[in-house]
Amino acid sequence: MTLETTLAAIRPADAAAMAAARELQARLTKPAGSLGALEDLSVRLAGLAGICPPPLPQPAAVAIFAGDHGVHAQGVTPWPQEVTVQMVANFLAGGAVVNAFARQAGASLLVVDVGVGTALPVADELLLDANIRRGTGDLSTGPAMTVDEARAAVEVGISVAEALIDGGAKCLAGGDMGIANTTPAAALIAAFTGADPAAVTGRGTGIDDTTYAKKVEVVTGALARHRPDPADPIAVLAAVGGLEHAALAGLMLGAAARRVPVVVDGVIAASAALAAAALAPDSVAAMIAGHRSVEPGASVALAHLGLTPLLDLGLRLGEGTGAVLALAVVASAARVLHEVATFDSAGVSEK
Amino acid sequence: MTLETTLAAIRPADAAAMAAARELQARLTKPAGSLGALEDLSVRLAGLAGICPPPLPQPAAVAIFAGDHGVHAQGVTPWPQEVTVQMVANFLAGGAVVNAFARQAGASLLVVDVGVGTALPVADELLLDANIRRGTGDLSTGPAMTVDEARAAVEVGISVAEALIDGGAKCLAGGDMGIANTTPAAALIAAFTGADPAAVTGRGTGIDDTTYAKKVEVVTGALARHRPDPADPIAVLAAVGGLEHAALAGLMLGAAARRVPVVVDGVIAASAALAAAALAPDSVAAMIAGHRSVEPGASVALAHLGLTPLLDLGLRLGEGTGAVLALAVVASAARVLHEVATFDSAGVSEK
Repeated sequence: MTLETTLAAIRPADAAAMAAARELQARLTKPAGSLGALEDLSVRLAGLAGICPPPLPQPAAVAIFAGDHGVHAQGVTPWPQEVTVQMVANFLAGGAVVNAFARQAGASLLVVDVGVGTALPVADELLLDANIRRGTGDLSTGPAMTVDEARAAVEVGISVAEALIDGGAKCLAGGDMGIANTTPAAALIAAFTGADPAAVTGRGTGIDDTTYAKKVEVVTGALARHRPDPADPIAVLAAVGGLEHAALAGLMLGAAARRVPVVVDGVIAASAALAAAALAPDSVAAMIAGHRSVEPGASVALAHLGLTPLLDLGLRLGEGTGAVLALAVVASAARVLHEVATFDSAGVSEK
Repeated sequence: MTLETTLAAIRPADAAAMAAARELQARLTKPAGSLGALEDLSVRLAGLAGICPPPLPQPAAVAIFAGDHGVHAQGVTPWPQEVTVQMVANFLAGGAVVNAFARQAGASLLVVDVGVGTALPVADELLLDANIRRGTGDLSTGPAMTVDEARAAVEVGISVAEALIDGGAKCLAGGDMGIANTTPAAALIAAFTGADPAAVTGRGTGIDDTTYAKKVEVVTGALARHRPDPADPIAVLAAVGGLEHAALAGLMLGAAARRVPVVVDGVIAASAALAAAALAPDSVAAMIAGHRSVEPGASVALAHLGLTPLLDLGLRLGEGTGAVLALAVVASAARVLHEVATFDSAGVSEK
């Protein structure tokens, strides 16, 4: 689907299905409210699907979008850019943390090259070549990409969502790989929320004070240079975003159009979620915040979206790890509506 | 094993295995520290097992201990006592929340009647009849049980741990069912931590202000009457505990003796963990706090034990639900040490 078709297909959550889920929760054999956040989650899943109980959100599919960043040249991270392509190879070999978590969760994994800086040496069934350009431009000296490239990257994400859902996925999780990509994430979050750049810039993979000061300076400078207009989300992605950020936004829009839940990972995914929500506010109904990243921008973005994260484990890895870790909680919440007996059906007395 | 044999078998965590896990975490293909609480958990699992990497903690087995409470007569809960046996039937029929969560986690489930007030009408392969007495005495007017009964209930839990581990379980989770059982849990937590009864008494399944005031009065009165001595943990369990609390303590001791992790659920399990730790301080090395219950006593108990909960989802159901929900996180933490490539092995550059 094109971006326009996708946006047109996104509908608000179904109020009747949500009411039915709330009513069912009250009749299940447990004290009312005793499942806390899982009750709210089950109601949201019903609202998204438009039916109660909603489909079980499994099997799940994880899509990891990889890209490189021209802003790497500004010294915003101590990691060499070659790590992006090396980690893609690590994903394909099954050796990264997200691979281990996906195996535990029983989720499939697809790596999408949407903007890696160097040609990938391998052909692999787990790898989709959807490269738009070999890394973005330096957002501190010019736009990260053209508006057409940003739109194309969003449409890559939409296509991936469609393909995974057509392949049987009942829940999506989005991940990212791209050395230096917390810098465009911070710029996106500042642009879409209006937050102070320093408040949404974090230490990413763990940087020292000098590098951190440089990173804040770069983000602040980029916002001053481009003055991105949140009312034109594709232009914001083009000016200060990244190819994987744009594709992740597309993944979320594609999931929302198909009424399939998509679990949001850390600060990269949260920045992409802001772009998706700016393009289609109702897409937030499909988003589940997997966890609260250590990165401060993630919390700012989730609060702006009105999403409460399920896990809070001090993660700051990306790759989709925090989203994949939450899949069992999401599935458990849905299972309650399918499988738990009511007071009536089980013959349990009420208080 | 007897209680004495079990206590004698419990050893401190292995410092060399913990150091090896820390050293391995630093070489894996991820920024140092980026897995937050999961890195600490993996180190603890290695310390418990005495080897790095530690065994994968699956398959897991859930044991739900059921009992009734004489203190129910004091009006500390609006739920009729018959709900205990009705919920046992619900567990056996597969219709409770813990059943749904266990199916999602791929965990087996065993229900243990350690103190249900009425004879259970069914024979079922999922039910173990280990009834010590048909409900405790009223702790507000006398001891909940004799010291011999408390010891026997602890030994039921030890036996269940042994049987489950002999049956192949690599991780245990303990659950409870017993209408009114948050009252003895609060008394146990006050007794073992020295906390004010009002600070550790919660609203359980959801009680009104009048019932809550009565509950605090009952807990306060029981502590004043029995003056339980935390240096004699079996006597504390006998005076103000419950049969399922004692059995859960035994489950934790049995797991610790076999160096198998045991995931602690909510306030009932946390109160039992205090008894286990009082009997064998090194047993805490086997305990993993699954979640932070809404019940205030749970947080007080976990803090006393030095345990940080993995999940915080506003649960207050019991049955082991919060422990089972955390199993995927525990397994994921262990998998990292088994499956993730090192910078060297994957050919990934370091910063």
